[in-house]
Amino acid sequence: MRMALGLEYDGSRFCGWQSQPSGCGAQDHLQTALARMAGHEIKVAAAGRTDAGVHALSQVVHFDTAVNRPQNAWVRGVNAFLPPGLRVLWAREVDAGFHARFSAERRSYQYLLQISPVAPAVLAGKVGWYHRPLDIEAMRRAAAHLPGEHDFSAFRAAECQAKSPVKHLYRADIRPHGNTLLFEFSANAFLHHMVRNLVGSLVYVGKGEHAAEWVKTLLEHKDRRFAAPTFMPDGLYLTGVHYDARWQLPVCARSLPLG
Amino acid sequence: MRMALGLEYDGSRFCGWQSQPSGCGAQDHLQTALARMAGHEIKVAAAGRTDAGVHALSQVVHFDTAVNRPQNAWVRGVNAFLPPGLRVLWAREVDAGFHARFSAERRSYQYLLQISPVAPAVLAGKVGWYHRPLDIEAMRRAAAHLPGEHDFSAFRAAECQAKSPVKHLYRADIRPHGNTLLFEFSANAFLHHMVRNLVGSLVYVGKGEHAAEWVKTLLEHKDRRFAAPTFMPDGLYLTGVHYDARWQLPVCARSLPLG
Repeated sequence: MRMALGLEYDGSRFCGWQSQPSGCGAQDHLQTALARMAGHEIKVAAAGRTDAGVHALSQVVHFDTAVNRPQNAWVRGVNAFLPPGLRVLWAREVDAGFHARFSAERRSYQYLLQISPVAPAVLAGKVGWYHRPLDIEAMRRAAAHLPGEHDFSAFRAAECQAKSPVKHLYRADIRPHGNTLLFEFSANAFLHHMVRNLVGSLVYVGKGEHAAEWVKTLLEHKDRRFAAPTFMPDGLYLTGVHYDARWQLPVCARSLPLG
Repeated sequence: MRMALGLEYDGSRFCGWQSQPSGCGAQDHLQTALARMAGHEIKVAAAGRTDAGVHALSQVVHFDTAVNRPQNAWVRGVNAFLPPGLRVLWAREVDAGFHARFSAERRSYQYLLQISPVAPAVLAGKVGWYHRPLDIEAMRRAAAHLPGEHDFSAFRAAECQAKSPVKHLYRADIRPHGNTLLFEFSANAFLHHMVRNLVGSLVYVGKGEHAAEWVKTLLEHKDRRFAAPTFMPDGLYLTGVHYDARWQLPVCARSLPLG
């Protein structure tokens, strides 16, 4: 049978989502724990392959297993085998046609950026950081150019393996909470490093390096070399993966308990 | 001259505030960094000696130094010598009569308790956790018995070195934020483990183990053995230390950017 799981993890404790020869990927730890529960080897497929340092509040994976265990075994049982910083939130048996990656219709990410002269200590690794005030209104005007279907080549990492650089961005919002900026993005899919590259360019606008319209020019030029450097992974969270209702998965958009 | 510093630190990265022979205390890292800046050995005194795993958003320390450096050297310069998870927020020259511990008139703590069937992953070590729903109204009625001057022996660790178990608690509030409870306590001073012991007993009330009035009985009995076990340190934050205005310190009450 095919099972789907919802996951939360702290990306700073793993070398990224994907399985690595050294076993340091979050996927490696999950597969080891699932194999202990199932009694056979298990390979999972994930909705989003997050980079090292990137967190997930709501990652979705699926796997196939020969054994029939109660749902709770796949949650509490598997959690007992996982290291701190990686937890199964829910488990659901799904139709054999479901695929965590290919059935996903929309992904949502949040980026938390702390603006303060001194770097974060308690939330080090959990929030991005910029040391000087930013012009939030200019950043919002810049972000307003992003939603829609565009060729996002300007915000695509060289190693990106996506077939097409054209994605549909549904949302690009920026809201302040005290000294923290909360960015929210959702799209049908994201290119490699796309959110961190968007945040980097929006921060460039915020510090006055470029006008808000620069972001529109970047989209038109479709050239990564003109955009800002990739922003640090620390504040990036995969917050939700949306699937068609026919798959009957739990609604799984989650946020940090912020402002 | 005497200098005062404001500090933020992630208690899960150190073996408590206090200096240890192995050098793993937050105090050890700070003293090493200060000595590099000053060119001579430095010993600091802190307002609150937080336990291993307990965080500070606003710890205050003082030290004496023979060298005259600009305030910014004691902030940005020292931060360059500190490990991640420990940061100097501000520095101020103070009167020689000032003492970070003995001049403090009031300390404030927050405790963050996540209530969810599955343990926190992203915020593991940063929030306490309880796996079942709690009766928050009963907990609030229980907390209402705490403010005032009381003998807090029921909530005092055996190793506590305070001269007197009588403290004046000014505040004991509980507020929900989504699936997280935020406890706020302030007092002239706290006994060893007092906040974690208070949280432990309030959680006992919340899960229906005892009625709200049990907390009043605990205060009257003055016996640690009747109260609940010490709650985990993970969600505890020193959020502020209050001094008389004549010391001219920055106002330094801070909160996590929550709810």
